[in-house]
Amino acid sequence: MTMLEHIREPRDLKALAGDRLDELAAEIRKFLVPAVARTGGHLGPNLGVVELTIALHRVFDSPADRILWDTGHQSYVHKLLTGRQDFSKLRAKGGLSGYPSRAESEHDVIENGHASTVLGWADGLAKANQVRGKDDHVVAVIGDGALTGGMAWEALNNIAVAKDRPLVIVVNDNERSYAPTIGGLADHLATLRTTDGYEKFLAWGKDVLQRTPVVGTPLYESLHGAKKGFKDAFAPQGMFEDLGLKYIGPVDGHDIAAVESALRRAAGFRGPVLVHCLTEKGRGYRPALEDEADHFHTVGAMDPLTCEPVAPPGAPSWTSVFGDEMVRIGAERPDVVAITAAMLQPVGLGKFAAAYPDRVWDVGIAEQHAAVSAAGLATGGLHPVVALYATFLNRAFDQVLMDVALHRCGVTFVLDRAGVTGVDGASHHGMWDMSMLGVVPGLRIAAPRDADQLRAELRESLDVTDAPTVIRYPKESVGEPIAAVERIGGVDVLHRAPQPVVLLVAVGVMATVCLEVAELLAARGTGTTVIDPRWVKPVDPAVVQLALRHAVVAVVEDNSRTGGVGWAVGQALRDAAVDVPLRTFGIPEQFLPHGKRGELLADIGLTPAEIAGRISAALARKENHS
Amino acid sequence: MTMLEHIREPRDLKALAGDRLDELAAEIRKFLVPAVARTGGHLGPNLGVVELTIALHRVFDSPADRILWDTGHQSYVHKLLTGRQDFSKLRAKGGLSGYPSRAESEHDVIENGHASTVLGWADGLAKANQVRGKDDHVVAVIGDGALTGGMAWEALNNIAVAKDRPLVIVVNDNERSYAPTIGGLADHLATLRTTDGYEKFLAWGKDVLQRTPVVGTPLYESLHGAKKGFKDAFAPQGMFEDLGLKYIGPVDGHDIAAVESALRRAAGFRGPVLVHCLTEKGRGYRPALEDEADHFHTVGAMDPLTCEPVAPPGAPSWTSVFGDEMVRIGAERPDVVAITAAMLQPVGLGKFAAAYPDRVWDVGIAEQHAAVSAAGLATGGLHPVVALYATFLNRAFDQVLMDVALHRCGVTFVLDRAGVTGVDGASHHGMWDMSMLGVVPGLRIAAPRDADQLRAELRESLDVTDAPTVIRYPKESVGEPIAAVERIGGVDVLHRAPQPVVLLVAVGVMATVCLEVAELLAARGTGTTVIDPRWVKPVDPAVVQLALRHAVVAVVEDNSRTGGVGWAVGQALRDAAVDVPLRTFGIPEQFLPHGKRGELLADIGLTPAEIAGRISAALARKENHS
Repeated sequence: MTMLEHIREPRDLKALAGDRLDELAAEIRKFLVPAVARTGGHLGPNLGVVELTIALHRVFDSPADRILWDTGHQSYVHKLLTGRQDFSKLRAKGGLSGYPSRAESEHDVIENGHASTVLGWADGLAKANQVRGKDDHVVAVIGDGALTGGMAWEALNNIAVAKDRPLVIVVNDNERSYAPTIGGLADHLATLRTTDGYEKFLAWGKDVLQRTPVVGTPLYESLHGAKKGFKDAFAPQGMFEDLGLKYIGPVDGHDIAAVESALRRAAGFRGPVLVHCLTEKGRGYRPALEDEADHFHTVGAMDPLTCEPVAPPGAPSWTSVFGDEMVRIGAERPDVVAITAAMLQPVGLGKFAAAYPDRVWDVGIAEQHAAVSAAGLATGGLHPVVALYATFLNRAFDQVLMDVALHRCGVTFVLDRAGVTGVDGASHHGMWDMSMLGVVPGLRIAAPRDADQLRAELRESLDVTDAPTVIRYPKESVGEPIAAVERIGGVDVLHRAPQPVVLLVAVGVMATVCLEVAELLAARGTGTTVIDPRWVKPVDPAVVQLALRHAVVAVVEDNSRTGGVGWAVGQALRDAAVDVPLRTFGIPEQFLPHGKRGELLADIGLTPAEIAGRISAALARKENHS
Repeated sequence: MTMLEHIREPRDLKALAGDRLDELAAEIRKFLVPAVARTGGHLGPNLGVVELTIALHRVFDSPADRILWDTGHQSYVHKLLTGRQDFSKLRAKGGLSGYPSRAESEHDVIENGHASTVLGWADGLAKANQVRGKDDHVVAVIGDGALTGGMAWEALNNIAVAKDRPLVIVVNDNERSYAPTIGGLADHLATLRTTDGYEKFLAWGKDVLQRTPVVGTPLYESLHGAKKGFKDAFAPQGMFEDLGLKYIGPVDGHDIAAVESALRRAAGFRGPVLVHCLTEKGRGYRPALEDEADHFHTVGAMDPLTCEPVAPPGAPSWTSVFGDEMVRIGAERPDVVAITAAMLQPVGLGKFAAAYPDRVWDVGIAEQHAAVSAAGLATGGLHPVVALYATFLNRAFDQVLMDVALHRCGVTFVLDRAGVTGVDGASHHGMWDMSMLGVVPGLRIAAPRDADQLRAELRESLDVTDAPTVIRYPKESVGEPIAAVERIGGVDVLHRAPQPVVLLVAVGVMATVCLEVAELLAARGTGTTVIDPRWVKPVDPAVVQLALRHAVVAVVEDNSRTGGVGWAVGQALRDAAVDVPLRTFGIPEQFLPHGKRGELLADIGLTPAEIAGRISAALARKENHS
């Protein structure tokens, strides 16, 4: 039995002698690499926090003390040390979540996989402790990347001012979010990394330079380049102490004794304190370290030795279709620029950035800034394309509404990972975008059904100069082209039975499902028209005209049914006084767990059989009444 | 003719001799006080930026150079200097907007009255200049209060890193947002105000202390209290330069020559630069300066000498009903705590704060933090009440969804100024909340129709421990109590005709309108049932049961019709296979201008006559078809 297997709860960890801990850390890495390679998951971030997590659970007493993980995808080591060592179904239905989960353990607090939230949670928990007279610790672990998000700063501003409210902030500084961390903050952290008080500075010398090299930047150059020099050596605590936070660091995050010592000092402080830990993403796994792009941030199932994917490469992804088209557009339209929020490669903008480096900006994990700066770019005469994961646009609702739409800015939002996304669970499903954006006056939404439509609708969106446009598509591979038999208004008719009684409105990739529904209904003698409205907001008048000629209308979308396209079609029908029965199919009003997309769709009844059955029932009801 | 009247555009201002400018500033104040007293408006903020605005328009060349105002309610002086001197209909229908307005002037860029956006706009505009090879200036004016908002920090992080992209940030530091600015940042600004480099520090002495006193805090105490001392005197530029921004200041914002000089230095710098201006809110108007609470941030129409309101005090406001009830609840429930985002008094929490100072937090203009820290407080065993203006909750959609609702936290959001609010225009109408919140799983929304219901529904909300709750009410005075004739399920029946054919679902204060509709329909021989569902999300099953017994259902709400209660009722009916015709009445999908609430409601057809007419048409259509 390994040391790791003997650790059932943090108490067991505390019983270990300090000189055994490096061996434990090695065991954990030896466990993680093949385990995550088998299922896929977040590898690099977890390899980076092995020692930090051990130290945290030795110094603090979870769950009475609250150890909070920002974003949460680096909680695998925490899971291993709190009684969860069966990783065989990691991120699969019924298996461990890829994030903390309250249902799994009392040691987990924040399930949310959106970044930059942990300091706000910590502030609330610390305030609750104060009001209730409890002196348990609150410890928030946040990456340097997540500090680029505005809510982290709102929280710091509140935390710093409460001098008598203990709270430990651990900055896990690996110089990256998904990609290298950007902005003035990253520069400042680099300065902190390379200064530690003037006295120490002189003695520090070569040793430190070798142990914590600044990637690609010699120390002198780093100091000089930042135009700071010796002055800063007097006050290396920098902006965090300017805000009023006690600063401890920098600490080598892979030296367990050093991290424990820093955390014990922090725990003894009766106010807010920040511990600056330097870690290496992908630590101890050569392929990850050698991967400059993202240090194996997330991996699919793969061979841990060769790193070859287990599944053969499939059809091109939606992401790559978008990315390739953007390169072509960039050549034709010098006014088209692009914005990403710390995810240049995952959203497919890598090739555009390589071709037009002066026309793309990574704004950090800062979706609000992505949207509002896009309004500025549009007002300045350019057409920005803001490429995000659908779920992360939630962060910028007010900016899309009040900055982009109110000012009638021609900005295109491209939402990848829309719909049911799968393994990342509740916070990553892109199921809110069409509802949230549905209320925005003037905004137009397209949901392409195939690669050709994605390319066409993206180009149509770039011709809209006085309103925001949105293109949304899912995570998986793009399917086969689906030809239209006719276009009416802006609507593509995909299938038409000779005497149709049912009008099926297919949103985006649900076209495939709808065509199967039509087959099932045909087998029961019910004729169907299947249409793809292409632009689902505003509702095309042709949809209403077509509805008039059918006995039942059904809308199928992979968005929350609440406030979605189905509801909008309902309004369009009512406004035209068309009181034909309507049925709407989408994601029910609930948070969806992790699992495979197909499994989840089946669980919520978004299958051809279920949809066909409910439409038949509506038809039968109508015939009974007429 | 006054000097002011001769100024038609910024060019006229540049022609003036420097020694005439203080006289002009005096004229502007002499104009503003009676003008704003006559109509009501933002007085204190504008009196504070008279000299700063003059200096900005003398140094820069608007509109080629972009002068951007954060929040925008301090743009009155800017309006006066750019050809808009008719303030007779300020904030009234057809008159000047209380914010910048592109329709009014080419000198206006940002119309949005939500705070903390300006740096993002500026970053976008500066990037556009860079891409297009233009060297026009971009100048962003932001208050210290608005720097507490996260999006300002996201922008600073991006702006600071672009060393070759010119952008001037003017921090208008009056130590307040609406209320005094809070947080570590405010402490840091206080330090900057009182230090200016060690050399200058020694010579500075008494003179500076007298010219720019730190309110209530002697210089030594301020330095010492912040535990900074001499060290900081070496590096007074502080966190802004740590981020990488050139810092100029502090500058006396009422010394036009000094401000002009600082701005010219900034304009000559080829990168991002921050000019720190110290101003006094309410400058030059004694009653404002003597008002400790908010320095006359906003005033209603009043006598400029006595400051007595022109209109007699009306019935109690919704705000005060909430505030008084919170004081009673606070005595009964030690677990109830409150959060405000820089608006303690305007949302009615002043009395609660006075009674329970340890159980209320002003988090700054930081709605994201208000929501996420509330999730922490709830997880820590308390029940937070987050009181905001309805429109500002837009900033926290992701946090309500992902932090509060996903984690099933018992948090109550109280949304004041919901619905059509009037004079502040497009960005202040509270017309999005029910649509945006409608998609949040588990969340419950109540819309009280009168003061009794507000008190009751607030208390009901505090008993919900596993989901977010929302209470929303409008701006005006609370009306007379409206008695229920019966309660069915959770639904109050307000009116029932003997043989009703129309079911009117009244949301909140639309109860009054619906009762009038019922009278109009009765006069035409149509019997109506009027119900107040009290909790509008989720839709009460009793609504569906009642719908079965009527020929037409109509929902009336003062929220965007898109995604609102009407749409949700439609879904509930469809899910129960109740295909009775439905008509929904609410705010159409458009941005509403400024004007009186009644005028705006009439413009969008939310009047008893219009609603009755459309319901009659639906009935006639149904009879023709059956």
